[in-house]
Amino acid sequence: MSKFLLKKYASLLPYTPGEQPKTGGYIKLNTNESPFPPSEKAREEYLKAFDKLNLYNDPENGALGAAIAKRYGLKTGNVLLTNGSDEALAFIYMAYADAEHPFAAPEISYGFYPVFSQLTGARNVTFPLKPDCSVDADAFVKTEYNVVFANPNAQTGTFMPVEDVERIVAASPERIVAVDEAYVDFGAESSVGLIKKYPNLIVIGTFSKSRSLAGGRIGFALSSEEIVSDLKRIKYSFNPYNLGRAAEAAALGALADEEYFSECTARVKQAREFTRAEAKRLNMEVVDGKANFLLMRSELIDGGELKDRLFAKKIIVRHFSTPYLSPYIRVTIGSMDEMKTFIKVLENILKGAAK
Amino acid sequence: MSKFLLKKYASLLPYTPGEQPKTGGYIKLNTNESPFPPSEKAREEYLKAFDKLNLYNDPENGALGAAIAKRYGLKTGNVLLTNGSDEALAFIYMAYADAEHPFAAPEISYGFYPVFSQLTGARNVTFPLKPDCSVDADAFVKTEYNVVFANPNAQTGTFMPVEDVERIVAASPERIVAVDEAYVDFGAESSVGLIKKYPNLIVIGTFSKSRSLAGGRIGFALSSEEIVSDLKRIKYSFNPYNLGRAAEAAALGALADEEYFSECTARVKQAREFTRAEAKRLNMEVVDGKANFLLMRSELIDGGELKDRLFAKKIIVRHFSTPYLSPYIRVTIGSMDEMKTFIKVLENILKGAAK
Repeated sequence: MSKFLLKKYASLLPYTPGEQPKTGGYIKLNTNESPFPPSEKAREEYLKAFDKLNLYNDPENGALGAAIAKRYGLKTGNVLLTNGSDEALAFIYMAYADAEHPFAAPEISYGFYPVFSQLTGARNVTFPLKPDCSVDADAFVKTEYNVVFANPNAQTGTFMPVEDVERIVAASPERIVAVDEAYVDFGAESSVGLIKKYPNLIVIGTFSKSRSLAGGRIGFALSSEEIVSDLKRIKYSFNPYNLGRAAEAAALGALADEEYFSECTARVKQAREFTRAEAKRLNMEVVDGKANFLLMRSELIDGGELKDRLFAKKIIVRHFSTPYLSPYIRVTIGSMDEMKTFIKVLENILKGAAK
Repeated sequence: MSKFLLKKYASLLPYTPGEQPKTGGYIKLNTNESPFPPSEKAREEYLKAFDKLNLYNDPENGALGAAIAKRYGLKTGNVLLTNGSDEALAFIYMAYADAEHPFAAPEISYGFYPVFSQLTGARNVTFPLKPDCSVDADAFVKTEYNVVFANPNAQTGTFMPVEDVERIVAASPERIVAVDEAYVDFGAESSVGLIKKYPNLIVIGTFSKSRSLAGGRIGFALSSEEIVSDLKRIKYSFNPYNLGRAAEAAALGALADEEYFSECTARVKQAREFTRAEAKRLNMEVVDGKANFLLMRSELIDGGELKDRLFAKKIIVRHFSTPYLSPYIRVTIGSMDEMKTFIKVLENILKGAAK
C-alpha cells in the first residue's frame, strides 16, 4: 500500500479468486466453469471478429443487447452489457450503495458482495441462512435495505422459488432488489419475468457458466429502463468500451446456439445428480443445490483437509475457511468422466479417513 | 435516472465516445484507431485462446504482465493490466481522487479526466494550454495537486519533452503524476524510464492505437510496486478477471511482433507528415502534434460545419463543441490512401468555402 492510497481503502479486503493452475493435468472443479468448450457458433463469430479488432467496439454493444433482450422477452433498454457479471455488480454498488444505503445479503453467498460494500463505504448487512442452508426469504421481505443475493445461491447452490423472490421485490418499491442469476441455467427458474412488473428489480446474468465463456468475460444486468439508464451513466463515466469485440462476438454466437446450450446444461445436471447420489452413498452430507456445483461435507474429515487430499490426487475443489463453510468443500460439476474420477478418489480418501 | 441513483451522481456528465458507424463505406478518421489490422501473430494467439475460453483467465494476467515488463525494462510488479486504458485511469481515480485530492489536468486534454473527477467527487482543476496549444509544464511543476495529462496530449497531439515531465514528477514526491501515453508510439518519447527513479509516477499505455487492438480492450499502468499494489487492491475489489483470454492472447501476439509494430507506426507517421504538409498547403492551421491524429482549423469554415461537410462525403472526423476546440477538427491519421482522399475532399470543401 502506498502513502497515496485514500484512507477509506486502508482496511479494504479484496476478493480472492479461485486458483487457476498454470500447468495441466488437474481436474479443475474449483471455479464453477463449464467442462465443455464454447459453441462452434461462438467460434465462428469470434474468428470473424478478429478482422475488425483494430476498431473500437460499439460502446452500446447494440447487437448483443438486442439478442439478449429477445432471449429474455425484454427491450434493449432493459439490458446493460458488462465485462463479466462482476462488473455489473460493481456498477450496481457504485450507483446505489453508500453509508446510508447498504445492500443486505445472505450471510453465506458470493464473497464479492461484502467487498463491494467495503469499496463503496456501505455497511455489511447480512442475514443468516436457514438450518437447511437456504436463503431466508422472510428476512429479505422485512428489511428496509437494498437487497442482493445469488439465486441459486453462491457456495450453497440452494434455489429460492420465484414466488419468494416476488414477495421480496413487492414488499417495498423503495429499494433495489438485485438477483444474481449466474447459476440459474442448471435447473432453476429465472426471476426475469418479474422485471416488467417491478421497476426496482435487477437480474444479473453471465456467459461464464452455462455458455462456457468464463474466459470471454461477458455479463449483463436486466432491469427497468430507469435502472439501466442509471447503470449506463456509471458505465459511460467509468469504461464506455467495456465489452470488446471478441467478447461480443463469442456471446452472440453462443446465444444463437440454443441446442448446444440445452445439451451442455443437461449434461451438467445429469453429472450433478450422479455426483449428488454417489456422494450421499459415501455418507457425505450434500446441500440441496441446483447450480453447477455441490456443497458437501463429511463427518470424517474437515473441508480444508479434504481439499488438500483431493489436490494431492490432482483434483482441485474450492474450500472456504470461514467458520460456516470450513467443514465443506464446494465441488464444481465437470463432465461425467471427471465426476466419476472425483467420486473414486473421494471414496478412497474417505476409506482412509474412516480407519 | 431512477429515484434510487445516489444524489452525488445527479449532475454527473458521462463521457461521449466518438461515433461508431454501423454501416460501411466511411473513411473513419474520428476515434484515433489504427487503419491497419492487428499483427498476424496476434491472430495466431487469439485463435488459440478460443479453445480455453470456457475457463477463467489468469486474474493476474501473468504472461502478458511479464511480456510488458520486459518490453519496458521493468518488473512484473510494476505492471497492472486493464480492460483498456480507460479502466486503468478509472482505477487510478478511484484509488487516489476525492474531494481533498483532485487531479490537475490540462484544460484541453482527454475528455474523460473531468468525468473521472466528477465520478470520484474530486474538483475539476485545470490549467490553460500555452498559446501554441502545448501543455504548460510550469503550471504542473507548481501545483500541489495530483497531476494527470496525456503525452502526446489528447485533442492537440502536442508532446512534452521527458525533461519537462521529470521536472513535474520531481517537484514533489507527495503527489501522484499520471502520464497517459496512449499516443506515444508515433514519434514521441516515453517517460517510462523515470519510473525506477520516482515512485509517484504512473505511466498509462494502451494497445488500442499503435498495436491495432482498439476493439480488443487492452490497457496497462506502469508504476512503482507500491502504486501497482494499490491499483490491484482496487482491481480485486472491483473486477478481478478484468482482462479476458482473447484480449491477453491478442496482446501477447501483438507484442511479439515488433517488426509489424515498427512498420505500422512508421506508416502512420509518414501519412501524418503528408497530411500535415498538404493541410498547410491548403492554408489550414495545423497544431504541432506527434500523435496519430492532427488538430486543424481553417479560417474559412467552422469546425462543426467542416465536420458535417466531410461527413456528407463519407469521411468521419471528430469535432468537439467546447469553445476552445470548436473551430477545429481532429483528424485521425489513416492509411496513405485514406489521407489522400481526405485531402482531396478537404480541398474541394475549402474551395467552395472560399467563394
